[in-house]
Amino acid sequence: MARLKGFERLTPVDEALSIFLKTLKLRRLKAVSVSVEEALGRVTAENIVAPTDMPPFDRSAVDGYAVRAQDTSEASQFKPKTLRLTKKDLVGRDEVKPVWTGSALPEGADAVVTLEQTKEIKDRIEVSVTVRLGENVSRKGEDIRNGETAIKSGTRLQPHHLGLLAGLGITHVKVVEKPKIAFLSTGSELVPIGEKPKPNQIIDSNKLILSSLCTELGAEPTNLGIARDNINEITAKIQEGVEKADVVITTGGTSVGATDLVPLAINKMGKPGVIVHGVTMRPAMPTALAIVKSKPIFVLSGYPVAAMFGFEAFARPVILRLLGVESEPRPMLKARLTRRVTGVLGRRVYLRVYAFKDKEGELVAASIRTKGSGLLTSMTRANGYVIIPEDREGLEEGETVVVHLFDKIGERERV
Amino acid sequence: MARLKGFERLTPVDEALSIFLKTLKLRRLKAVSVSVEEALGRVTAENIVAPTDMPPFDRSAVDGYAVRAQDTSEASQFKPKTLRLTKKDLVGRDEVKPVWTGSALPEGADAVVTLEQTKEIKDRIEVSVTVRLGENVSRKGEDIRNGETAIKSGTRLQPHHLGLLAGLGITHVKVVEKPKIAFLSTGSELVPIGEKPKPNQIIDSNKLILSSLCTELGAEPTNLGIARDNINEITAKIQEGVEKADVVITTGGTSVGATDLVPLAINKMGKPGVIVHGVTMRPAMPTALAIVKSKPIFVLSGYPVAAMFGFEAFARPVILRLLGVESEPRPMLKARLTRRVTGVLGRRVYLRVYAFKDKEGELVAASIRTKGSGLLTSMTRANGYVIIPEDREGLEEGETVVVHLFDKIGERERV
Repeated sequence: MARLKGFERLTPVDEALSIFLKTLKLRRLKAVSVSVEEALGRVTAENIVAPTDMPPFDRSAVDGYAVRAQDTSEASQFKPKTLRLTKKDLVGRDEVKPVWTGSALPEGADAVVTLEQTKEIKDRIEVSVTVRLGENVSRKGEDIRNGETAIKSGTRLQPHHLGLLAGLGITHVKVVEKPKIAFLSTGSELVPIGEKPKPNQIIDSNKLILSSLCTELGAEPTNLGIARDNINEITAKIQEGVEKADVVITTGGTSVGATDLVPLAINKMGKPGVIVHGVTMRPAMPTALAIVKSKPIFVLSGYPVAAMFGFEAFARPVILRLLGVESEPRPMLKARLTRRVTGVLGRRVYLRVYAFKDKEGELVAASIRTKGSGLLTSMTRANGYVIIPEDREGLEEGETVVVHLFDKIGERERV
Repeated sequence: MARLKGFERLTPVDEALSIFLKTLKLRRLKAVSVSVEEALGRVTAENIVAPTDMPPFDRSAVDGYAVRAQDTSEASQFKPKTLRLTKKDLVGRDEVKPVWTGSALPEGADAVVTLEQTKEIKDRIEVSVTVRLGENVSRKGEDIRNGETAIKSGTRLQPHHLGLLAGLGITHVKVVEKPKIAFLSTGSELVPIGEKPKPNQIIDSNKLILSSLCTELGAEPTNLGIARDNINEITAKIQEGVEKADVVITTGGTSVGATDLVPLAINKMGKPGVIVHGVTMRPAMPTALAIVKSKPIFVLSGYPVAAMFGFEAFARPVILRLLGVESEPRPMLKARLTRRVTGVLGRRVYLRVYAFKDKEGELVAASIRTKGSGLLTSMTRANGYVIIPEDREGLEEGETVVVHLFDKIGERERV
């Protein structure tokens, strides 16, 4: 058994990420073309320029009657003007033609009177308002003009972005390929999901959690399996991951205890190897960040909650950069703390909280009482986290804090 | 051509939804079993009870040495206690055994001393702290106990929920089946995505937007195609939708103009038919809510932005109820309005805004200048909406408002 020893120096969280990114020299992955029907949640790899005007023609913005604006001059509720209904395609002098929201403005017309401001009397229409040139008309190119940037590079495509693309006649779009993330769980005590653990064995739940987080980000997880606490096995698996994926994430074997084999294995694979080992955060202090063959490797805790926060602090921003997304903060809200919470000077504490609306409708955040970073229920009972900064001993009852949400806001206090 | 006429009465938004839900008598869809690996984003159909204790055994919460707490009594930095390293499986009196985070507590031990509070001297360990019974130990069942509810019915499964299930040895979970949503676009001017529009034709972009919104909610969209402005064609398609889906959503033909054939078609299909037609909101005023053969039908505007807000106000809550999700508000934040905005007395206005952090780091919301509900760029330039209530003529510059986010918060003002 190797000798147990502590970390010599912990790196501050921000410094760790910044050193890592500097050494890593990350570039966005290559572009692939996908159909707009399959592009939901993908990230654009280039600026997308409108190939046409939208709308493609002048159209009515309301239900009503297309007119020549000048024919309504001085018309009012008290002195309506009577115009003729035409069935022709052309609206001539003192003529109107019915139109509805979205329909093309007939030739000759240059404005629309809303239905509510007219009265139909046989084949005549009484107009009780004066309309301006272009009134109630949605002009050709008013939404977006031919040649304008419709969607910027690095945009995660939401439903309305897809609508804009489709409306412009764009059927395919260049998006960043999905980063491939290879997952390795290490630990002789682990059994995969689906296998019954023997006494003293535990089920490898980390991989499913972290790969699900990757799926949510639009990455593609692949499974390297489980490596026992054996340096050759670990080395072989990490090498496999580096070959076939863009990012490798390991869990377990990161503390400086007897089974701390992962950083050891990585450092034998070549320079630069482990860049950071041990960060000033809680949980996830023993996180290590490494680079092998220019690929980032995140060496996360074997404890699920610590693994999640290590992922949140380091792997998430790196995966977003591979996608070309500049920043994608989780939804945030301000809430009052329901009770005092203690931090640790010199550590950035990720406090799990449940944010909900109290009886007065105000948003409050209740910290989840927990012990250690092993308790998954500290996540399932929470819906977000609050950061206690390195320079604070704690946060006060009633203090307004920023909650980073990883689940929906609670409508009421949890029982 | 049918006679143009206005809406006789508009129903307030909340009243419309409440009448509709009352008439609809919605029940949650049936349950299906899926593997935990495929359950991300699905909604649980029952309470899930822990079938075992987690952790399944007492384990160390830190790297250090397992001890019998009583053997450390009165140990301190100034007066450390020296204990023997044992290689046996049992920790006897005045003995310690190395453990690391997550490993099972050896028999005989009842506490753990952290590495930092020990010093190794040959086969002896100097302990410089007194530990309590159970200190640094994660007790069997401490995370969750056999028989406790692990996850409540109606929970949308997030990565950490899946981890909890997997950790408990649960491989399959009962989730609510995906609601099937059938989409029909109506309008003789429409061509499907992929087809080149002739002059005066437009591309049907609504369907892709709304079906993407459904996908995001965990529903399964199916495509009924496009119906021309022909009552028989519309009737046949809606009937097809009612047969094969749980919800039907149509776009176009909802205003009271010449092509207002959808409500007409629905009312010929039998009672109760159209329940609400015309609501006090902007955009999406001409929305209709209908029921045919106990299936909800949402008759949305042909204008994409109006269709989206009609969906947001009515279809979204109904689909969530089919899933058994009690409430799932969009992420919300409070922000100051950058300028005065005008509302309409008696209308609930959905104002598109772009929320971002200003130079002082404060969250502000800039309203998107727009005309009518036809402009998709009013959505792509926004990241959320603010509701101007029915009883307000407008909102003031600097007023704090609630922004409902449909995209990420901006890190800076958009150029």
